[in-house]
Amino acid sequence: MKKIITLLTDFGLKDPYVGAMKGVILSICPNANIIDISHEIRKFDIRQGAYVLASAASFFPKGTIHVGVVDPGVGTTRKPIIIETKKSLYIGPDNGLLILAALKEGIKKVVHISNRKYMLPRISHTFHGRDIFAPAAAHLANGIPIEEFGPPLEKYETLTFSKPKIHKNHIEGEIIYIDDFGNIVTNIYRELLEKISINEGEIIKILFNDRTEKVLKICKAYNEVKEGEFLAIIGSGDFLEISINQGNAAKKLNIKEGTKVVVELV
Amino acid sequence: MKKIITLLTDFGLKDPYVGAMKGVILSICPNANIIDISHEIRKFDIRQGAYVLASAASFFPKGTIHVGVVDPGVGTTRKPIIIETKKSLYIGPDNGLLILAALKEGIKKVVHISNRKYMLPRISHTFHGRDIFAPAAAHLANGIPIEEFGPPLEKYETLTFSKPKIHKNHIEGEIIYIDDFGNIVTNIYRELLEKISINEGEIIKILFNDRTEKVLKICKAYNEVKEGEFLAIIGSGDFLEISINQGNAAKKLNIKEGTKVVVELV
Amino acid sequence: MKKIITLLTDFGLKDPYVGAMKGVILSICPNANIIDISHEIRKFDIRQGAYVLASAASFFPKGTIHVGVVDPGVGTTRKPIIIETKKSLYIGPDNGLLILAALKEGIKKVVHISNRKYMLPRISHTFHGRDIFAPAAAHLANGIPIEEFGPPLEKYETLTFSKPKIHKNHIEGEIIYIDDFGNIVTNIYRELLEKISINEGEIIKILFNDRTEKVLKICKAYNEVKEGEFLAIIGSGDFLEISINQGNAAKKLNIKEGTKVVVELV
Repeated sequence: MKKIITLLTDFGLKDPYVGAMKGVILSICPNANIIDISHEIRKFDIRQGAYVLASAASFFPKGTIHVGVVDPGVGTTRKPIIIETKKSLYIGPDNGLLILAALKEGIKKVVHISNRKYMLPRISHTFHGRDIFAPAAAHLANGIPIEEFGPPLEKYETLTFSKPKIHKNHIEGEIIYIDDFGNIVTNIYRELLEKISINEGEIIKILFNDRTEKVLKICKAYNEVKEGEFLAIIGSGDFLEISINQGNAAKKLNIKEGTKVVVELV
Repeated sequence: MKKIITLLTDFGLKDPYVGAMKGVILSICPNANIIDISHEIRKFDIRQGAYVLASAASFFPKGTIHVGVVDPGVGTTRKPIIIETKKSLYIGPDNGLLILAALKEGIKKVVHISNRKYMLPRISHTFHGRDIFAPAAAHLANGIPIEEFGPPLEKYETLTFSKPKIHKNHIEGEIIYIDDFGNIVTNIYRELLEKISINEGEIIKILFNDRTEKVLKICKAYNEVKEGEFLAIIGSGDFLEISINQGNAAKKLNIKEGTKVVVELV
Repeated sequence: MKKIITLLTDFGLKDPYVGAMKGVILSICPNANIIDISHEIRKFDIRQGAYVLASAASFFPKGTIHVGVVDPGVGTTRKPIIIETKKSLYIGPDNGLLILAALKEGIKKVVHISNRKYMLPRISHTFHGRDIFAPAAAHLANGIPIEEFGPPLEKYETLTFSKPKIHKNHIEGEIIYIDDFGNIVTNIYRELLEKISINEGEIIKILFNDRTEKVLKICKAYNEVKEGEFLAIIGSGDFLEISINQGNAAKKLNIKEGTKVVVELV
């Protein structure tokens, strides 16, 4: 069976960088099956990368090797790591990028990649994706045990997304992601809404940033409202989202990731 | 032989959505060969998706499984379908997206995907690409017969592109596509031009939208005119196109898909 | 072993063109492993394409088949060619696009693709990527010898990037690439700097276009300066680059590829 190696970076698709990583992987493990998750993560935005990686990685089969490179600290003392979870292997910088996906699966072991044998002969200051992470992924795919790459790491960076706070009649949350459609994804998940008796089909009031207010139905489909109108919906990640039917809600509201939201039943 | 599964969506490449679909496919059919056709279809633009799918799909080998997801009606009563043609299988929403490609190959059977056994355990309201279409593609690749997915569907959505009208001395047509180079693709094909004795090398007058007029030679290469100058050419889809040598004709003329054109010999 | 075929074009990712090329390849060589290097080369920019191809191709394994299509002269007398190097095969138009990568590996033979047997039955005027280059790549992957495709070509186009000039106390160079991060890549490589005793950790003066001057430290990591500040660094291609830590240097300086630079020790 071909080993799956996924890639997630903030490199964009114009430059030679993603191609170079793929070339390195195939030079070491010629029958790897390389799958792109995303290369359009906002530059240097570790949180956005962590969210996208965690959202996509859970759908891959057991044994998948995920490489994540959003790495503003490249060339400094931040460590290159491998995280072994109950389901997958994650490779990238120790800056929190991998941790959200890894925690969902349950972390078994973290290793500090330090064995030069599994890196390219020359290590640049600026492109560890090519020189350290891609070779590590390919060697793992070839069956090299994780212990060979370096010593276990007891302390590693975490990344915490703010947790929604539930009150008697309202929930305080945050925008954790805005997708390419302009759908506004909050960190308020279905079960939490149900705890204060908010269900699909009901009308809620959403206050963004203590300023902009929207009164919306929690719909089961975008088409329940007219084209161009706002709606609330439980999205594909099981989070409450605010959308416009066939429109871009985030642009219309001029809302960014990190914005506070308060949700209550009308 | 590895089964080829192609993907065409309006998801863009930033979000976790395309990655999630690929993960789902590989979890069910680990040796599928997943090929991206395009994920940059204009959001919700079924016609543009239908054109791109039909243009690319015909070059894939017999037995290819094509998944198309431009799906503004997701979560409503619009049906998920599989179309079996004489050459390929098409999977996606019953909204016309697949029909142009399927009609070119000859439709043998259409099935309404309704067997929950071949969907993900939980079906979201907003992402049938991941929950229904990707699993269906992977199960088809595994050899599950199309009949297993649900009952045959006698009535399904079609999508009609306006047909060019031929007159004695002129042809009325429409812009069906504008590509990333700014090439303006009309629905007027070579044989039609020849019927009113318009051939390569000749000069034609093109009237856009009853307003903008261009008198152009039908060239055999962009380079027949100087850099920055307009030309007409029979493009790679065998349609009449209007272009600028090393420039963007659509931007220069401020022309959009759907615009009417009238072509006549000068 | 599956043959690797890489693709580099200026087609962008919206249109059916890249998908059509992949379909053609898989129709002829069903077990080809198709890898995208980039499809976001600036339209018609042969030099940018040549730089990206040369930067990525060297990381692929021996025997890789690279297809490059940045082809403003498509349909004219410019020849379709195959270049065999000591390591790889390059396929594309004879316009210099392939030459930089090929020269790095050492050219063994160049062939003018002219045997219609290895092209699609119908050759369009505008899309040789699909009709000539993709089929050639797939037939090469199937083991057809290069001699079968056409006669050897003694004279072919080259492409010269300006070479940096070294003086006693300064080096005159040029911006050869600006990446998606806004990193400004010069043609001044590490060894050249060392020849006039400029080393990492030292302070240099860089003059852009005889106008804009920057005095910068040659850092070992972006993080050596504060976020938003300029630095110099030896990049992943071993060239001197000018960057902003977590910012876009090219936008800030409004600098384009081709700009002259003069570097001297302070």
